[in-house]
Parts: sequence; C-alpha cells; structure tokens
Amino acid sequence: MGWRCRTGATLVLGAGVGAAVCRLLSPRGREEEAEGAGVLHRVPVLPVPSVLASELTVSPGASVAVMKYGFPSLANIKTRESYVTSYDPRTRTASWVIERLNPASLSGSSNRKDCEFRADDSVHVFHRSTNDDYRGSGFDRGHLAAAANHKWSQKAMDDTFYLSNVAPQNPHLNQKTWNNLEKLCRSLTKRYLNVYVCSGPLYLPRQEADGKLYVRYQVIGQNHVAVPTHFFKVLILEQADGRGVELRSYVLPNEPIDEKVPLERFLVPIETIERASGLLFVPNIMKRTSSLQAVTDRPTTVPRIHQ
Amino acid sequence: MGWRCRTGATLVLGAGVGAAVCRLLSPRGREEEAEGAGVLHRVPVLPVPSVLASELTVSPGASVAVMKYGFPSLANIKTRESYVTSYDPRTRTASWVIERLNPASLSGSSNRKDCEFRADDSVHVFHRSTNDDYRGSGFDRGHLAAAANHKWSQKAMDDTFYLSNVAPQNPHLNQKTWNNLEKLCRSLTKRYLNVYVCSGPLYLPRQEADGKLYVRYQVIGQNHVAVPTHFFKVLILEQADGRGVELRSYVLPNEPIDEKVPLERFLVPIETIERASGLLFVPNIMKRTSSLQAVTDRPTTVPRIHQ
Repeated sequence: MGWRCRTGATLVLGAGVGAAVCRLLSPRGREEEAEGAGVLHRVPVLPVPSVLASELTVSPGASVAVMKYGFPSLANIKTRESYVTSYDPRTRTASWVIERLNPASLSGSSNRKDCEFRADDSVHVFHRSTNDDYRGSGFDRGHLAAAANHKWSQKAMDDTFYLSNVAPQNPHLNQKTWNNLEKLCRSLTKRYLNVYVCSGPLYLPRQEADGKLYVRYQVIGQNHVAVPTHFFKVLILEQADGRGVELRSYVLPNEPIDEKVPLERFLVPIETIERASGLLFVPNIMKRTSSLQAVTDRPTTVPRIHQ
Repeated sequence: MGWRCRTGATLVLGAGVGAAVCRLLSPRGREEEAEGAGVLHRVPVLPVPSVLASELTVSPGASVAVMKYGFPSLANIKTRESYVTSYDPRTRTASWVIERLNPASLSGSSNRKDCEFRADDSVHVFHRSTNDDYRGSGFDRGHLAAAANHKWSQKAMDDTFYLSNVAPQNPHLNQKTWNNLEKLCRSLTKRYLNVYVCSGPLYLPRQEADGKLYVRYQVIGQNHVAVPTHFFKVLILEQADGRGVELRSYVLPNEPIDEKVPLERFLVPIETIERASGLLFVPNIMKRTSSLQAVTDRPTTVPRIHQ
C-alpha cells in the first residue's frame, strides 16, 4: 500500500506500567471468582453490577453511554437510537459512527426483514444520498453501525438503515470479510464489559506512475456519493474491574478480500487512522482510563499507551 | 468541465417578502430624531453612529462583523484577527475562510515583507501542514484570505500567513488570475458598503475513460496536504441604504488560466458550490436580508432569490 504508516513517538505516551501482558485478553471474571469464592459461600449478597453509573442506562446503545470515550470529531453530530455519528456533507457519508455492543444490545427479537434503507431527511437535500444513487452502481449499501449489533430494539435496528450510516462498499467485502469483522466485534462482547466500535470511511492516497501521491475515489449517483478507498474499524474494548481499555484498529481496502486472510493482518497502529482520517481517538480515551493497550498484529509485542 | 451544475428549484426559495426593502440598512435614528427633535435641540447629545450594533467594532475585519451572514459550516472554527475559518483536518487545509473588506480594512501601513508563512500550532500535529510540505512541491502557498486585504493591522496581515489559511495552488493561477480576482474583491469595496469574501478549496469529480466519475487530487509533503482541483470565492456584496445583498460565486480550476479570459466566465450558480463543497451559504444569508440577487455571467438575466 502506498500510504504511510508512522509509528513510534506518539503511540508510546509515557513510561511503562506494571500490569502483565500475559493477562491481556484473559476471560473476564475468572480472578474474581477465585478470590471471592470463600466469601460468597458464607454470606448472602446481591450481585453488584461491575459497570459505571454512566453505563446504567435503559437502552443498551444509548448515546450517553456511547459518548463515554469521546467523539473523534465534533462536526454534524447526529444521535440515533443505536449509534452516534458525524456526517460529512461533502462525501455524503458519515465521517464516523460509534456504537456500543454488549450482550444486552445483541439479544432481542428485532428483525432485519422489517428494515428498509432510507435517505436521511435530517441532511440537507444537496448533501444527502438516496437509494437511487446506489442503484446499478455495483456497490452495496454497506452498514457502518451493523444492523445485527442492535437486536435489542426494532427502532435501534431500523436506525442503522439510514443512508447516513451507509457507504458504498464492494459487495464481496461487505458480505465476507467486513461481515466477519462485524462478527468478531460481537463475539468480543463475551470477553469484555463493553465493546465500543467506531467505523468509518477512508480516502487514502497512493503513488501513481509519476511518483506522486494521489487520492482517487469514485463518486456514484446524481448526488456524487463518495466510494471510500478503505474502511476503518476502531474497537475500544473495556475490561471489567478497572483493568483498563484495549484498542484494536483495523483498516480494510474497499475491494474483495480472500476470507482466508486472518483479520489480524488488517490491524494497524491507531495513529495511521488518526492521521489519514483527520480524526483523533487516543486523547479522548486517555481522559477515561489510565491504562490503554493497543493491540497490534504481533501479540508478542503489544505496545502500551500511557498518559 | 465534467461536473454537474444544477440550478432551479432550490435557488428560488419562496415568494417575495413584504417588508419595505428601502428601509433595510437605513441609518438608525432618523425616526427617533424626528420624534425627539424638540428634546435634541434643548439638551446636549452624543452623536449616534448609523451602523448596526454588530458592526460597532474597533477592527475592520473583526470576527463579530465577519459572522454577519453566518458560517457555511460549523466544524473546527478558528477566529483570527482578519478572518474566521473552518479547518478540515483530513485535507490539512481550510474548508472555508471568511473575511470582510471595506475601505478601512484595505488602508494602513502593514507590510507583507514583515510576514512569514508558519504552521498553525492550534491544529493537532497529525493534521497540520508545514512549510516543508510545500517545499519543492511545485505549488505555491496560496492565500485564502488575501494578505493585501488586511493592511489595517500588521497582526491582521500576519494572521493570513498561517498555513491553515493556505492551500497548494498552481503558481501561475496564484500570481495571475486568482490575484486578479482578489483585486476585483478589493475594488468592489468602492461600490458596496461591505464586501464579504468566502474562499475555499474544492475537490471536484470528473469523468474518466471508463465513463465513471472520480475525484482525484494530489497530496504533497509528509503531511499529505491535499491539492484542491478547484478554488471557490463567494462574494456577499452588501449594498448601502438597504438595497439588499448581491451574491457572486466563482469557481476557478487549480491550473494556469489565460489572463485574457474575463473573470465573469468563472461565475457559477451558488448551488454548484454548495453541492460540491458540502457547505451552505444561501440559508444563512436569507436570515439577514429579504433581497438577495445572484449575479451570474449574464448580467441581463440576474436571478432574484427570495425567502
């Protein structure tokens, strides 16, 4: 790929911290179970939810909860039942969409068959994409916040079908590897307290024959909806009992990807996404945790990000 | 040009407005003077300035005055001595820059030789352009708010040299036709009460050999500063004595332009810029005037825009 990945100085934000890397990604609750076993057998206790007050909301995906780790930018924010998004009126797609996944948001009886893609009337007609723009374009209407993440409420699932939560996506990517990444996000809810997922488009430059770098992307339909060259997903994985936050950041090209390629191959340093997208994730996350671990594609060298 | 210009329905915003246009912007106090003439002859009074409160500022280009016709978008607003701007962290240039020109802003002893282009430290280092990015790129550091518009204060002129007020511009365009357009803006201050100028980059699609539309633009330097395909200038021309507002909107390609081509050839309907840029001008302007005339390249058919 022609785009630059710079790592180093800004990822390592301070000195090392003592927590052992070997405890990373360990199943939740095992230690608490072992430590508290004796007590639990002797006294009656009420189960104490291991969540913060800000997370005690009725709606599993409510925007107050979704905001916990801040917003990557502050332009054209829209709050929906299942996600919060920043709309880019120039590209006619979102800049980013943040949702919060946990077992509660994944369970329910909502049915995708009851949902229909629809234009977002809250966007000015000059800057709004329509179903007609996608028709015959050769691109899927690729969800940014995934429908299957929000079975907890039909309204929440419906809201993922706004075209402002959609970008033109290669059909093979949408139905295979991107779908697998969405499934991974959901499966991580078994190991983490909450899984915050931020998804969005990228428009990455690449070198052309003249040796210079160019950003080049197709636009489709009468409204010139931008076709991203790549997509990102940033996963903020919240561990129970204050054991901090893990970060996984993926970049996938908007083209068919062989499903045999492991998803870990698409992990990139968060800084790569921050530079290319014009967004910032780490400064906001660091306001809410003193322990942030960035998971890269080489689990033996997990860089630790400190405040 | 391969991009679409749509006009029509949205330019005509509705029926005419009843308020007498001739009373707009008329000097305040005339009625009070008539009513209170008897008193005024009897007691000493201070002169009442015949301007709106929002214009009672010391600085000719101060942001309160610049805001009069609203902002085309609300992301990453920065207020400077001579202009207000919205920064686009993805392209590393402004989305738009608004300044207000009048005889007072054009006169003064400020010297361009005392100014130096400098990086804008208020922008995160990931999204900031530097002088190094431009060096050897073949592009000029093209001012959006022009230095010569702000002779009234050395600080005001200095502020136009922030690289956040600059975009990579073809040198011939910068030094010839773009410069001529800047001169035209200044000369219009002789005929209008105030000349509001909003300048910015465009990234317009064009048809390629496969028949599809693509946006393609170069990025320069280590920070991948986007080279706009075009530039726009929107002129909001405020007439004296409440005769309303005129609008002239220009789009120039970022390439050498024969100086013999009259500037009128680059006039476009404002809607063209609004659609392509993701910005909105007309709705905000209509909040401040009931008489908006869009000047096109055919002065005999000046369309009138009403609320």
